[in-house]
Amino acid sequence: MNFCNKIIASKSQYAEIADHKCHCIKGHTGKCNEFPFLEHLKATAPSVANKIKRDATMTTGAAWKSEDAGPNRILRWVMMLDDDELLKYGLDMSKLKPGVIAKLREKAADYDSCILVAAKLTWLVYQMENAPTPPQDIKFYLEDLFGEMKPGSTLCVICRLPLNFKLFELAARGKAAIETCHKNPRMHNADNVGFGHRECNIAQGNKSLDEFYSWIEGIIERVNSKS
Amino acid sequence: MNFCNKIIASKSQYAEIADHKCHCIKGHTGKCNEFPFLEHLKATAPSVANKIKRDATMTTGAAWKSEDAGPNRILRWVMMLDDDELLKYGLDMSKLKPGVIAKLREKAADYDSCILVAAKLTWLVYQMENAPTPPQDIKFYLEDLFGEMKPGSTLCVICRLPLNFKLFELAARGKAAIETCHKNPRMHNADNVGFGHRECNIAQGNKSLDEFYSWIEGIIERVNSKS
Repeated sequence: MNFCNKIIASKSQYAEIADHKCHCIKGHTGKCNEFPFLEHLKATAPSVANKIKRDATMTTGAAWKSEDAGPNRILRWVMMLDDDELLKYGLDMSKLKPGVIAKLREKAADYDSCILVAAKLTWLVYQMENAPTPPQDIKFYLEDLFGEMKPGSTLCVICRLPLNFKLFELAARGKAAIETCHKNPRMHNADNVGFGHRECNIAQGNKSLDEFYSWIEGIIERVNSKS
Repeated sequence: MNFCNKIIASKSQYAEIADHKCHCIKGHTGKCNEFPFLEHLKATAPSVANKIKRDATMTTGAAWKSEDAGPNRILRWVMMLDDDELLKYGLDMSKLKPGVIAKLREKAADYDSCILVAAKLTWLVYQMENAPTPPQDIKFYLEDLFGEMKPGSTLCVICRLPLNFKLFELAARGKAAIETCHKNPRMHNADNVGFGHRECNIAQGNKSLDEFYSWIEGIIERVNSKS
């Protein structure tokens, strides 16, 4: 698919780092739109649309507030700048702890990758159990990018059980029951991104998927050999 | 083993709920002591001794601070009182959310059980890899209660791998790498208590051990059947 790619005016202080572009199909009629594929979810499930946009384009927030915890959320492509350039935006990386720096840098991704991640997540959401049905134009758009959509076929990246769209609504203290996940290795691009149950994501922790599967396989072997 | 069981004077506001008693062997010489089995760890690894005492006798703290989050930590046997009695101690259960109440009540345990839990945890700690060697009198005391001690034989309750005493030192933001765990069902008594890796405890989450093993077994089956 060829995108329109016209530059969309932005007042963001970070606009000079990466232009915001139109991702309607080239030659489209009507207004330019950075996230045309999210328009239907924006109307039917705005919190899900916001989550997709946020997870696709922003780093995750610091788990606690303190001087050295780093920014709560920042555009992923801003984190591709080097330390000197970041200083111009008021972010002094030298004040952060090595672990925080590594975490922020790991989440860096270029603008185009982030847009495709958002589209891929949208494609996955529409294939969850109990998901709304996409309008034909959005279905066509997403299938052109990522292939045919099969209702109910989106699995948790980690436990491989079907994900239910209704889990987006179950939130405990701001924590959704479905989280955006990265497969192994943890790079932020459309191939590598998916959704997982929150409990699965927590269980996986810092392990890669392969490490996680080996780990739990070892547990099962020890448990079965003893009892 | 028969304990001395003499009452030890206490200034705690909760002393009238349960007497603090001496758990030296009956007929002992020297001063009475509520936790005689912890004396050696108190000298060689005070933070571990404190952790054992705390986890054995106190409820865990609320994860966040707010009016309805409940007390940060409270003696487990205090949580056995009914709501009216708790009100006398300034704890208004009716102000707490049902989930918080359930969590607090689940952690209730009588004084004698808590003491035996502390002794059992001490017995387990001495059998961890790289643990200090207990003096003969404490070894005798603990073996009389729970059986022969085999150095290096204490396993993580969850993943069944040996636990290393040195993991007590690895703490990230106050979180020890070894946590006190309860087997299935989650009752606070000497039979049911053990240690686990923090990452294992997190992975287990709210599941019972049986549920956890079934869950990860299902994951392994799905992963293996697909690849």
